[in-house]
Amino acid sequence: MRIAVVAPSCRLTEEAAAAVRAIVAARGDCELVIHPQCFLSDGHFAGPDEARLAALREVMADPAIDAVWFARGGYGSNRIAEATLADLPEAARAKSYLGYSDAGFLLAGLYKAGLEVAWGPMPQDAVRGDHGLQNGTAAVERALDWLVRRDPAALEPALDGPSMAFNLTVLSNLLGTSVEPDFTGVDLLIEEVSEHLYAIDRSMFHVTSSPAIQKVRRLRLGRVSDILPNDPDFGRDEAAIVEQWCGRSGILFGGRADIGHDAGNRVVPFARENR
Amino acid sequence: MRIAVVAPSCRLTEEAAAAVRAIVAARGDCELVIHPQCFLSDGHFAGPDEARLAALREVMADPAIDAVWFARGGYGSNRIAEATLADLPEAARAKSYLGYSDAGFLLAGLYKAGLEVAWGPMPQDAVRGDHGLQNGTAAVERALDWLVRRDPAALEPALDGPSMAFNLTVLSNLLGTSVEPDFTGVDLLIEEVSEHLYAIDRSMFHVTSSPAIQKVRRLRLGRVSDILPNDPDFGRDEAAIVEQWCGRSGILFGGRADIGHDAGNRVVPFARENR
Repeated sequence: MRIAVVAPSCRLTEEAAAAVRAIVAARGDCELVIHPQCFLSDGHFAGPDEARLAALREVMADPAIDAVWFARGGYGSNRIAEATLADLPEAARAKSYLGYSDAGFLLAGLYKAGLEVAWGPMPQDAVRGDHGLQNGTAAVERALDWLVRRDPAALEPALDGPSMAFNLTVLSNLLGTSVEPDFTGVDLLIEEVSEHLYAIDRSMFHVTSSPAIQKVRRLRLGRVSDILPNDPDFGRDEAAIVEQWCGRSGILFGGRADIGHDAGNRVVPFARENR
Repeated sequence: MRIAVVAPSCRLTEEAAAAVRAIVAARGDCELVIHPQCFLSDGHFAGPDEARLAALREVMADPAIDAVWFARGGYGSNRIAEATLADLPEAARAKSYLGYSDAGFLLAGLYKAGLEVAWGPMPQDAVRGDHGLQNGTAAVERALDWLVRRDPAALEPALDGPSMAFNLTVLSNLLGTSVEPDFTGVDLLIEEVSEHLYAIDRSMFHVTSSPAIQKVRRLRLGRVSDILPNDPDFGRDEAAIVEQWCGRSGILFGGRADIGHDAGNRVVPFARENR
């Protein structure tokens, strides 16, 4: 199992790369190829659009690569998503793709193009301090357990049939674009980080007002972390917000989900049937 | 000229209400009716959805009211926009509507329903300190000059044919919803406040990827103020971001516009032909 790491959004830190290399060396069940593009820097991004696109296209076209693992989120994968999907090389279809957060733009587009994608922890999570360094390691191990041997223990525990997972803001920003996938009949898991409650309410209005989203089977809410202060107090919490917008739009609310911007984040394969 | 003030989003402050009342008294060319709902409070909002909707519907249905002036932005008008437009009373069609920022959800929906709406300063702007209190007064005078006597000096100075104006985030969040208007052939003016440059880039991706937005005649950029820090530095400014997304999506960039979240904000009537 040969896993390539590329960074379509923000730069991977050397510290995280070293931590992931050590984890992989200790496992001995896979090989990691961290593309040099991961360490490029161009303002906000891990190199210019052209460099991020070229690295991603290179590993997608390489028949020796079994999986493409997005290094981290941040912002920027949407800028190269459409070009990523143009004239897909045959080798791109024979591998799987893993990431979350901003990588959702790519997960959506690649899934729409018929490729095998999953939401799950990324290499930069290795140095997450939110649940302690040990849990950052556990997040990376969970991702590798999924990539290498499709370990069911890595999965979000309540998956039930076709599912997708997105960061709420990313989901809102991909609606109506060329990477919007078909949501018909799926369990849609969402999570959010570092937003004000009023902005979450607004995003839920936008997302649940979409006729495409109204075709989901259920909507489930992952963790909403690092909520920014609302002045005055918003008056209701994230669960009440999501339940209310589900109610208003006729979408079935399926309860909480075990995903989020943290080391406890689980794997959600985008699939007609979850394996 | 009888002008009703209601608050479909956040609460009007007593200080701003007093300032606007004084300005109106000094002018002597109009009468102001500040609805008591403006001073309600329910968490983030100027009262519960039901109260904000009822006040708005009340003044819309009142034949003695010539214009409805939204008190301020913030967040929340989207929550009552669809209900605002249901079974419109005849009197609602015989008046004009003015506001900006979060009120854009209502401007969009009311315009779509065939009513006369305009982007422009709101009562809460009376106490804006950004350009000094005097300029807050000037913003309110400009709005009243437009409402009372359609003073061309209040208009954004480079309007040329059918135009609309929106806060970028509001525009992004109304796409695909029931209040999305027809953008075909209009000059679309946008502005933004209190966002990170990466989020502005993401919103521009979302907005310019929309086939509905790609039908505009031109896109013009108002002021982008109070930009939140980007770490690392984003690498390009707001004008470069907007020009690049226009270029990528085939939308003509029409240069800068004299609107923004400040006391210099001008009036932009939504109209097939600007008067």
